[in-house]
Amino acid sequence: MSMAPSVSYSITVRLEVASRGRAVSELTRAVEQTGGVVTALDVTAAGPGRLRVDVTCAARDSEHAEEIVASLRGIDGVALHKISDRTFLMHLGGKIEMQSKVPLRTRDELSMAYTPGVARVSLAIAANPDDVRRLTIKRNSVAVVTDGSAVLGLGNLGPYAALPVMEGKAALFKRFAGIDAWPICLDTQDTDEIVRTVQVIAPGWGGINLEDISAPRCFEVERRLRDLLDIPVFHDDQHGTAIVVLAALTNALRVVGKQMSGVRIAMSGAGAAGSAVLRLLLLSGAKDVVVCDDKGAVHLGRPGLDDNLRWVAENTNTEGYEGELPGALRGADVFIGLSVPNIATGDDIAAMNSHAVVFALANPDPEVDPEVAGEHAAVVATGRSDYPNQINNVLAFPGVFRGLLDAQSRTVTDHMLLAAAQALASVVSPEELGPNYIIPSVFHPDVASSVAAAVRAEAGGKGQGVES
Amino acid sequence: MSMAPSVSYSITVRLEVASRGRAVSELTRAVEQTGGVVTALDVTAAGPGRLRVDVTCAARDSEHAEEIVASLRGIDGVALHKISDRTFLMHLGGKIEMQSKVPLRTRDELSMAYTPGVARVSLAIAANPDDVRRLTIKRNSVAVVTDGSAVLGLGNLGPYAALPVMEGKAALFKRFAGIDAWPICLDTQDTDEIVRTVQVIAPGWGGINLEDISAPRCFEVERRLRDLLDIPVFHDDQHGTAIVVLAALTNALRVVGKQMSGVRIAMSGAGAAGSAVLRLLLLSGAKDVVVCDDKGAVHLGRPGLDDNLRWVAENTNTEGYEGELPGALRGADVFIGLSVPNIATGDDIAAMNSHAVVFALANPDPEVDPEVAGEHAAVVATGRSDYPNQINNVLAFPGVFRGLLDAQSRTVTDHMLLAAAQALASVVSPEELGPNYIIPSVFHPDVASSVAAAVRAEAGGKGQGVES
Repeated sequence: MSMAPSVSYSITVRLEVASRGRAVSELTRAVEQTGGVVTALDVTAAGPGRLRVDVTCAARDSEHAEEIVASLRGIDGVALHKISDRTFLMHLGGKIEMQSKVPLRTRDELSMAYTPGVARVSLAIAANPDDVRRLTIKRNSVAVVTDGSAVLGLGNLGPYAALPVMEGKAALFKRFAGIDAWPICLDTQDTDEIVRTVQVIAPGWGGINLEDISAPRCFEVERRLRDLLDIPVFHDDQHGTAIVVLAALTNALRVVGKQMSGVRIAMSGAGAAGSAVLRLLLLSGAKDVVVCDDKGAVHLGRPGLDDNLRWVAENTNTEGYEGELPGALRGADVFIGLSVPNIATGDDIAAMNSHAVVFALANPDPEVDPEVAGEHAAVVATGRSDYPNQINNVLAFPGVFRGLLDAQSRTVTDHMLLAAAQALASVVSPEELGPNYIIPSVFHPDVASSVAAAVRAEAGGKGQGVES
Repeated sequence: MSMAPSVSYSITVRLEVASRGRAVSELTRAVEQTGGVVTALDVTAAGPGRLRVDVTCAARDSEHAEEIVASLRGIDGVALHKISDRTFLMHLGGKIEMQSKVPLRTRDELSMAYTPGVARVSLAIAANPDDVRRLTIKRNSVAVVTDGSAVLGLGNLGPYAALPVMEGKAALFKRFAGIDAWPICLDTQDTDEIVRTVQVIAPGWGGINLEDISAPRCFEVERRLRDLLDIPVFHDDQHGTAIVVLAALTNALRVVGKQMSGVRIAMSGAGAAGSAVLRLLLLSGAKDVVVCDDKGAVHLGRPGLDDNLRWVAENTNTEGYEGELPGALRGADVFIGLSVPNIATGDDIAAMNSHAVVFALANPDPEVDPEVAGEHAAVVATGRSDYPNQINNVLAFPGVFRGLLDAQSRTVTDHMLLAAAQALASVVSPEELGPNYIIPSVFHPDVASSVAAAVRAEAGGKGQGVES
């Protein structure tokens, strides 16, 4: 399970070499000897006896990138200049911007878009507040809100370090669903303050996407905001993951010919994602689930259960299993890991029921080596892009919000999430379905529109697109 | 002082008429008979004996638009279809949008802009927080924050009705200074809550533009936020106006050959704009100012002065004048009105000193009819676009924030505002300067860059543009 070189760890090295015959092949060989992959090579200048070359190559990680640079430095007569990191270059100055949709070339255009013309639009909205969804950005705008307490899998990095992640999220909203999202990074991690701040800034948005807020605060923040606001509130780490997992599991069970109501499911992880996945599994008919965390199986007799774990215990583990994950896996049909790396072995997977389904979704290192799991299980999925069946939230959140905004929905319900999961599963046709294709690519053109249509229908949507 | 027809009250009427010879000229005459101005006429379909025509025309106001429609309806054999309001059409779906600056076409591009690549950028910022201004949108982003308590001159319309104004403001930020601004409309008008909310959402922005927050709360909100935040906070209704008024007055005094330190200034209005203008006038050398409001002249003996008026009294009216505005205007060199319509007459202006300067800035109806004022004063300016010398905040705020962001300034000081005003005044060359040209057009290409350079220099700016 060694990581492959990835463009996300890609560097460009500007250097000069003597322009002898094998100059270029020496460069590429130096990169390849360290396991790097040359993805571009430009000779940018040629002088008397010297070449200036930009070598771009993919590395596994930062250490590997340094090895590649060292290998290039070792070439006889080479002079290294600037070393650029392509990912950092892409982030310079930020990844998103604001654009005006109206022309502002003349005084007349200014007087319609701003004063005095805009005054009539303001008065119309004051007279009829529902017009705000017709005459402003509210209808297509989503706030991407974080407190920076659980940035990716990296932990509590705070609001500044969270900002590039939220920018990326906003860019994905536009790319996949035409939604105008903007990051709101909060300088507080107090639950009451998060709730009150989002409530106070809500008027300008058509929906709130909560992001990277740590459990258990994320549960209370979302629940209270849903009660307070008249726009939908969606914590992507919970529900985005749940939708994609349920869609993938629906298709995986089709592959192995089992029913949701009949399978035994062992889960690892009862955090934000795990709890939301469980909720959606139960809603879609799962009857027999055991959830484990770092203290073993969650059961009613376990001391120190918080509200969330108590709910888990009340709705799972009817047999009162009190052991660890390996015991829960024995005879199980499905394993869903949303926890930490390397907590299950090939033997654990081999002890599952025949035609087992394994979703090992910890990132970047799964709960069990997917290649080892594949020796025993019928279907294996991960969160990684370098294996088949990638469980990726990008499959869900753009379409979900597209549907919510188009329906002018004031809420988001579990039944909408269920409809989204079913629609996402249906994008994979019966002919395409197979052990290595249970979930569509994020670039599949039908993903966002199918999910949006299902959510809009479930929301009792008005079916309105943006008027123009 | 009748309003001229304006494109900001422009309608398009779709109708059908019999296709007789004078059909089209009958339409245009019907519009012109009511004082409307035809700005476009399209024959969009021609059938047997019938023409379908879109007539677009500018009206003075909503009533006038209705008169025009009635006049068209009176044409023999006409059938009116849809009547569209061009300003409302322009606002459908909102005026601004979010755009990604990075390509997201392939899995590799996703993995650089979002996970896993973005994780390294987040870690870099966590390790070195100053990098947030290099690697995120913070360096070029401004929040346009309002509580909707003083929307344009319309009053307390609330956050929804304020949204189209804030969108227009954001569009102007981009149009004139390349700044990415986004509206934040607050569902509270409590001073403490406004301050705390802006503080909590501050991490993602390089500056805060406060907008349309009513006095006296706006003073406290701004003062407290400036103390709390490490990014500049600028209430445009105060300081944008002050910069443009000072620039215009600087040039008007050049026209009449008087010195700031020698003139007597009578002001009407001690609200947000009036107080900020006064502050900047004093900083630029004015010695003899009397400020009047609806209770007459502000003086130290007047009962019921709040903090702001007490400050006004302490810094103006050294002779202790206790009368009304007309008495303050007698013998004054300069009248600056930032208050309400029609509070001064031609006789009041005639009683001013010779070569008087009159800025009557109440909108849409000035403190004194500018045509009447022009019979007695040497220089007249208004807030209106249909007279010369329009005092328009668009001349100031884009360049001010461009300079602040480029300097990565953590504050905004009165000396920066003064530098901005001087730079704005200097855009008018000595050859161009005259009674009808004391301030440049908002479309003058040097306005924002000149203001930005002055603010950046005063801020001790790093002189950095956006890296790329």
